[in-house]
Amino acid sequence: MSAEIPAEALQLRSLVRADQTLELFLDMVPVSEPGPDEVVIRVEAAPLNPLFGGADMAAAVASGSAERPVVTAPIPDAAMRGLAGRVGTPMPVGNEGAGTVVAAGESPAAQALLGKVVAAAGGGMYSQYRPVNVALCLELPAGATAIEGAASFVNPMTVLGMVETMRMENHSALVHTAAASNLGQMLNRLCIERQIPLVNIVRKPDHEAILRTAGAVHVCNSTSTDFMAELTGALKATGATLAFDAIGGGRLANQILTGMEAAANAATGGYSRYGSAVHKQVYIYGSLDRGPTELTRSYGTAWGIGGWLLTPFLQKVGLARVAQLRDQVAAGLTTTFASSYTAQVSLPGALSLEAIADYGRQATGSKYVIIPSRAA
Amino acid sequence: MSAEIPAEALQLRSLVRADQTLELFLDMVPVSEPGPDEVVIRVEAAPLNPLFGGADMAAAVASGSAERPVVTAPIPDAAMRGLAGRVGTPMPVGNEGAGTVVAAGESPAAQALLGKVVAAAGGGMYSQYRPVNVALCLELPAGATAIEGAASFVNPMTVLGMVETMRMENHSALVHTAAASNLGQMLNRLCIERQIPLVNIVRKPDHEAILRTAGAVHVCNSTSTDFMAELTGALKATGATLAFDAIGGGRLANQILTGMEAAANAATGGYSRYGSAVHKQVYIYGSLDRGPTELTRSYGTAWGIGGWLLTPFLQKVGLARVAQLRDQVAAGLTTTFASSYTAQVSLPGALSLEAIADYGRQATGSKYVIIPSRAA
Repeated sequence: MSAEIPAEALQLRSLVRADQTLELFLDMVPVSEPGPDEVVIRVEAAPLNPLFGGADMAAAVASGSAERPVVTAPIPDAAMRGLAGRVGTPMPVGNEGAGTVVAAGESPAAQALLGKVVAAAGGGMYSQYRPVNVALCLELPAGATAIEGAASFVNPMTVLGMVETMRMENHSALVHTAAASNLGQMLNRLCIERQIPLVNIVRKPDHEAILRTAGAVHVCNSTSTDFMAELTGALKATGATLAFDAIGGGRLANQILTGMEAAANAATGGYSRYGSAVHKQVYIYGSLDRGPTELTRSYGTAWGIGGWLLTPFLQKVGLARVAQLRDQVAAGLTTTFASSYTAQVSLPGALSLEAIADYGRQATGSKYVIIPSRAA
Repeated sequence: MSAEIPAEALQLRSLVRADQTLELFLDMVPVSEPGPDEVVIRVEAAPLNPLFGGADMAAAVASGSAERPVVTAPIPDAAMRGLAGRVGTPMPVGNEGAGTVVAAGESPAAQALLGKVVAAAGGGMYSQYRPVNVALCLELPAGATAIEGAASFVNPMTVLGMVETMRMENHSALVHTAAASNLGQMLNRLCIERQIPLVNIVRKPDHEAILRTAGAVHVCNSTSTDFMAELTGALKATGATLAFDAIGGGRLANQILTGMEAAANAATGGYSRYGSAVHKQVYIYGSLDRGPTELTRSYGTAWGIGGWLLTPFLQKVGLARVAQLRDQVAAGLTTTFASSYTAQVSLPGALSLEAIADYGRQATGSKYVIIPSRAA
């Protein structure tokens, strides 16, 4: 065993129990030696994303000790159906993080990273130490900290993926909902840099202000009484026919398609009983509203709605293109692609009911980062 | 003016009035000489499809004379929004029909059709005479009647388009709703011939019987208490991941996606928090239920739903492929692609309130054909 890596270390795990209970806990797990193409990362920062699998966290109960807290919460029937495959198997969690490479396998690619600070999208990153394949690692630019690099994969690649999807599917402008989120602000910066017209949809006046201050031209508040008129005006001005929607449920996707159709008909003037020939697309990539999506289908036949996820997008564009996008992220790590955090927590701290109640709201402007080396 | 064509002839027209009223009426319109690439068709049969634009036909009122009936009906607010571009312009209606070419332009292609019985998708086919570009005409096989060829475009090309879309988008089996319709029975015949697994979804036991008698293997009744289990079983057996849905509103599209996801997960076994990686697609091509479509999104992220229409499909595959598909239709005109009718009506007869009440229901097994030469 290398002197640099301990025999075992803490890891946050998620277990779905057969009694319809979600259990989140910390476990001491063995830290394995890296394989030839692997490095062992001492994780120094990992962005905290709620991973509750639909459990009712308002009914969560704390147990265990201060060093080894356990949180349990009931899983409603509807959510349980989708979790059947997980029952009884504790899973490591945490999509991404960053830290120092403290051990490396024998391959030159692995050895080259020894001692470097890297970001990694290896899964199970809510761990003190984590072995990761070098293909999933990105060496951070000189001087960048682990906290700066912790969220350099999911959000940056997602906003780049949105822009890339726009080009691949022949659109020329974008609509984004929950637009004042960390991801939304990042997309706003990217679109400004690349001169891509962007319609930002938010739900609160102060979120409008955040985006306008950041230079956004088109910001619509979906709670405004004039929302449909404002949205349609922004869609006419931008010609946006592709939306990425983080809300999912309710009527917002339908309103976007309706507005796009009105804008398309205003542009062409003529009547067609089948609606405009312009294809209008909404991709749902989040589910902040877990309720059903309601579609009135009053926008002709040239429309689509569907799920969108980063991983299949990356598979579609291929490794070479992904490498180019990763280089773009590295170049803009502390500018375009910067994330900011409102709180830092330890691994036990991530399981306090107070923290869960706060970050579980997924409220705009509230974003936690886990520092696994902290004791509490 | 050619001796074969009259100076003017009857045409069924549809007018949206500014007072939110739909007016259907017969008009004597000039029959123009054909352009170089046109033929004038004496329309002898045209399939009757309801073209009410969302008007409330239960509140329809008849006026005019027996020879020139007029039907008016109120248009609800929601439907009126989509019809704004039509206000004040009487439009000819009727997608397709068949008849004898009684005059032809000077081009060789037009001249070659003189005297022939052709099917045409020229629009405005609820007319006694109609000039149509030769590119939209199909010469019927020797011996085929106008009635046999009247519906040789929309339904046959639609079912061929469904199968072509399946191949283009890498699916290997199909789901179809309202599957006992004329179109559904046609798709069932085509899929049996080509050994394409097909899941037929119907709403009535006698429709189940129609399809089973026609050789369908998988027929599910969406009103059955075991519908979801039966549907999921059929989806497992066929591996169908593409559906064409004529219903549109309600939860059926959602049930299909849910069943596809269950079948995909059963096939792979493993758990993924993002759902199966298999792309599941529903295309809505009709709107028998005009209510909203409700999506619970409980099928991961690899799913899509959207509109589907024949014309954009034909534009996508291109003229050469369309010509090949037309040849397939001609070869199977009285077998695979045959349509049947329950009633024949004249142009005035198509505007009787009794007929409208009957064909307006769009009930399976009830299908009218207009014979424009009939007086009443």
